Amino acid sequence: MSKKLTKRSEDYSKWYNELVVKADLAENAAVRGCMVIKPYGYAIWENMQKELDAMFKETGHENAYFPLLVPKSLFEAEEKNAEGFAKECAVVTHYRLKNDPEKEGKLMVDPNAKLEEELVVRPTSEAIIWNTYRGWIQSYRDLPLLINQWANVVRWEMRTRLFLRTAEFLWQEGHTAHATKEEALQEASKMQGVYADFAENFMAMPVVKGIKTESERFAGALDTYTIEALMQDGKALQAGTSHFLGQNFAEAFDVKFTNKEGKQEHVWATSWGVSTRLIGGLIMTHSDDLGLVLPPKLAPIQVVIVPIYKSQEQLDALSEKAVQLVKALKNKGVSVKFDNRTTHKPGWKFAEYEMKGVPLRIAVGPRDLENGTLELARRDTLEKEVVAQEAIEARVLELLEEIQEQLFQKAKTYRDDHITKVDDFKTFQEVLNSKGGFVLAHWDGTEETENQIKEKTKATIRCIAIDAPEEEGKCVFSGKPSQKRVLFAKAY
Amino acid sequence: MSKKLTKRSEDYSKWYNELVVKADLAENAAVRGCMVIKPYGYAIWENMQKELDAMFKETGHENAYFPLLVPKSLFEAEEKNAEGFAKECAVVTHYRLKNDPEKEGKLMVDPNAKLEEELVVRPTSEAIIWNTYRGWIQSYRDLPLLINQWANVVRWEMRTRLFLRTAEFLWQEGHTAHATKEEALQEASKMQGVYADFAENFMAMPVVKGIKTESERFAGALDTYTIEALMQDGKALQAGTSHFLGQNFAEAFDVKFTNKEGKQEHVWATSWGVSTRLIGGLIMTHSDDLGLVLPPKLAPIQVVIVPIYKSQEQLDALSEKAVQLVKALKNKGVSVKFDNRTTHKPGWKFAEYEMKGVPLRIAVGPRDLENGTLELARRDTLEKEVVAQEAIEARVLELLEEIQEQLFQKAKTYRDDHITKVDDFKTFQEVLNSKGGFVLAHWDGTEETENQIKEKTKATIRCIAIDAPEEEGKCVFSGKPSQKRVLFAKAY
Repeated sequence: MSKKLTKRSEDYSKWYNELVVKADLAENAAVRGCMVIKPYGYAIWENMQKELDAMFKETGHENAYFPLLVPKSLFEAEEKNAEGFAKECAVVTHYRLKNDPEKEGKLMVDPNAKLEEELVVRPTSEAIIWNTYRGWIQSYRDLPLLINQWANVVRWEMRTRLFLRTAEFLWQEGHTAHATKEEALQEASKMQGVYADFAENFMAMPVVKGIKTESERFAGALDTYTIEALMQDGKALQAGTSHFLGQNFAEAFDVKFTNKEGKQEHVWATSWGVSTRLIGGLIMTHSDDLGLVLPPKLAPIQVVIVPIYKSQEQLDALSEKAVQLVKALKNKGVSVKFDNRTTHKPGWKFAEYEMKGVPLRIAVGPRDLENGTLELARRDTLEKEVVAQEAIEARVLELLEEIQEQLFQKAKTYRDDHITKVDDFKTFQEVLNSKGGFVLAHWDGTEETENQIKEKTKATIRCIAIDAPEEEGKCVFSGKPSQKRVLFAKAY
Repeated sequence: MSKKLTKRSEDYSKWYNELVVKADLAENAAVRGCMVIKPYGYAIWENMQKELDAMFKETGHENAYFPLLVPKSLFEAEEKNAEGFAKECAVVTHYRLKNDPEKEGKLMVDPNAKLEEELVVRPTSEAIIWNTYRGWIQSYRDLPLLINQWANVVRWEMRTRLFLRTAEFLWQEGHTAHATKEEALQEASKMQGVYADFAENFMAMPVVKGIKTESERFAGALDTYTIEALMQDGKALQAGTSHFLGQNFAEAFDVKFTNKEGKQEHVWATSWGVSTRLIGGLIMTHSDDLGLVLPPKLAPIQVVIVPIYKSQEQLDALSEKAVQLVKALKNKGVSVKFDNRTTHKPGWKFAEYEMKGVPLRIAVGPRDLENGTLELARRDTLEKEVVAQEAIEARVLELLEEIQEQLFQKAKTYRDDHITKVDDFKTFQEVLNSKGGFVLAHWDGTEETENQIKEKTKATIRCIAIDAPEEEGKCVFSGKPSQKRVLFAKAY
């Protein structure tokens, strides 16, 4: 397999698809729209899970697990939510296969095993969870209920792309229940903050925290809080959402609690989720024409050591040094790999780890042994330096931090440079078509205008930033008065 | 809710069902045969996952993720495997719901969204994985391929019980590919060893390592290695299995590799799995009439501190001491909870943590503050002791180890006492009906005898222990010659 990627400047979309496969992250499965997440890609997801899970637990949440299959009657109970997902539901109708009498060795669906009620493969779990919460919540003492689930979900999307939009994906979904509206709003906002913290401090991906417009909200939510990132091609990526669900699900599933005054009230709800889509965001925030670039905090391998040798004798001598170094770095909590495979040449290995985005590469050859040095190469800047062996641990730790920080700063500079204030629709269109990125413009607050802009430009309102200042202005499309600028962009 | 359980001696099955619910581990879901794993039960599963995952990685395995939905044509490719699972497959036939024109607000399956090919919800993933491996394996350099997946699976079982047998369950499934038969056999045996290690050293559940007879093998396997545990009611529980699959799947999915001599060969395979069923085994190995008893290594809460007080002033003083203790124990890696809820009385809390199987309880009252003491209570033996405050950390650590060890020894003594050597069929039946447990008897090696014994006694051959000595004898049923005793039992 050629390891060369299409250049981003030639075809960004093709570059992305090639990178995902060549960096061994994922591939298309034999099932339409589904992916196989390969070990290297899954290791990134495991690192994400580990950090997020710790953050959820620190904020008082516990994990639980609810069924994959949702009876249709439960699924349809909250009508807006059901309507929002009905068109992309995989439906289980039968519970048995049998031998096909007409085709030797083949199976067919057994018509006698038709379910009385069809089961929907969860596209999201509000329905089954709120139906369960009815039994868990009686009094204000049972609240808040702060639960998260790590799970797979299925949404029968028509156009799919690895990580970004797949028929099945992995995610976490938080589902919380509260005694008051204020507390639920605070929770939704808090989890948006957790997501932003994770995106910026672990993924090194700057995000805008904002609120969705009505037409972009989660089906069944009263408010959707979002974090929006900007990819290198100028398109936005919705990276995580947190929903204030009001009492919609409590009403649909009759979940009430007795308050301190002894009166029955419906419970207030939130839900929030991030998914394997984040891996797509990670790729498109940092990577380059040589392949993946990973922030050290999420890299499955932070440092790779490649020996440069001609004879077995040399390899043995280098290995001794390398094994010491592996041990020393592991003791410092660094994830390190010594690639002593004799089946591949150093040049091949260099290209391989560049493709896989390993943040630091250490090359060690016979001359290094003589001189007491090592060659250290950064994946992000491709800079090389010669380091004295006794200084290597400290330098590695320093560089891992530096890379993490610089990747964020670089992405933030790019993102900030691609937020363009615009006051007329002609410029609005020009910016979207040439420079791309976020366009910060006034909007009259109507869905009609939103739809017309979308139709003409393919840009949607990504969010109303939570820190957007009040500012008198005129809608960039209708000219009607507006009090705030909102962020438009073409999006994944 | 009454917290009293039915006694085990009265109705073991009822005791189990009540315990699972009252200890807040799981409950039946609104979906037939499925369960909701509640936070406390899920926390046990997380602890199991953490330890197992580390053991898999130490033995060279990596995690990956494969699709939930398997096209029928792939599913049926390995015929024995397909036949084994066909009768319990949930099948997705449609990908969309639509509004029901006859019922306002209701949904129906959209007949226009019928899939061309039905999708089976994975009951196990050999088919989809081996279809994928075809693309991953070309040469001996690509082998061994050592992959594990943490996932949910669905098997449409007719009789279900929480944790022990549910229509959907969580598990891990390892799927490995090897260049030689010997290596695959070693892998299957190695993973049986990992499971036995986990069962005995973490779950404190003694197991027999053995091999399944042909009729009890995994569908599509040439050999199934099992670990078999014994529950308190004298029934056996298959706790984990590891399969040598030969070249069956490689042939069915045409997975070949070029060996060192440049010749094409089919790959050799194993698969192995344990599931949330282990939680059922954990419960039935250690628990008593007061509730759950958990081995410290898997307990979500290892120590609970309960304050005994009459006034807020007393609670404040006790809290100060308790918070110090929490901090000190956490620093030692102990999972500790301080239950300072004012909504529940100490007696209620004592019963609650007994039901939940928290290994150690520390009660602290005003007199303890005066005397510089604490009251320590063991969940397993219910023994109490007064400990000087300065000695508490060391004593807690010591007791946690002691409890772990004693739970194993107690279970092992029970298990060893319930392996009965039997040489005639009348005694065989008597032992099964009165004492229960494993019956160690000669068997003539035929499926016919195995079936007849099963029909007459409901006992199956759990396994042929791998350390069973060669011994001339006569089949307990047919009188035909036999070279080894095998283990019979009634089983879950």
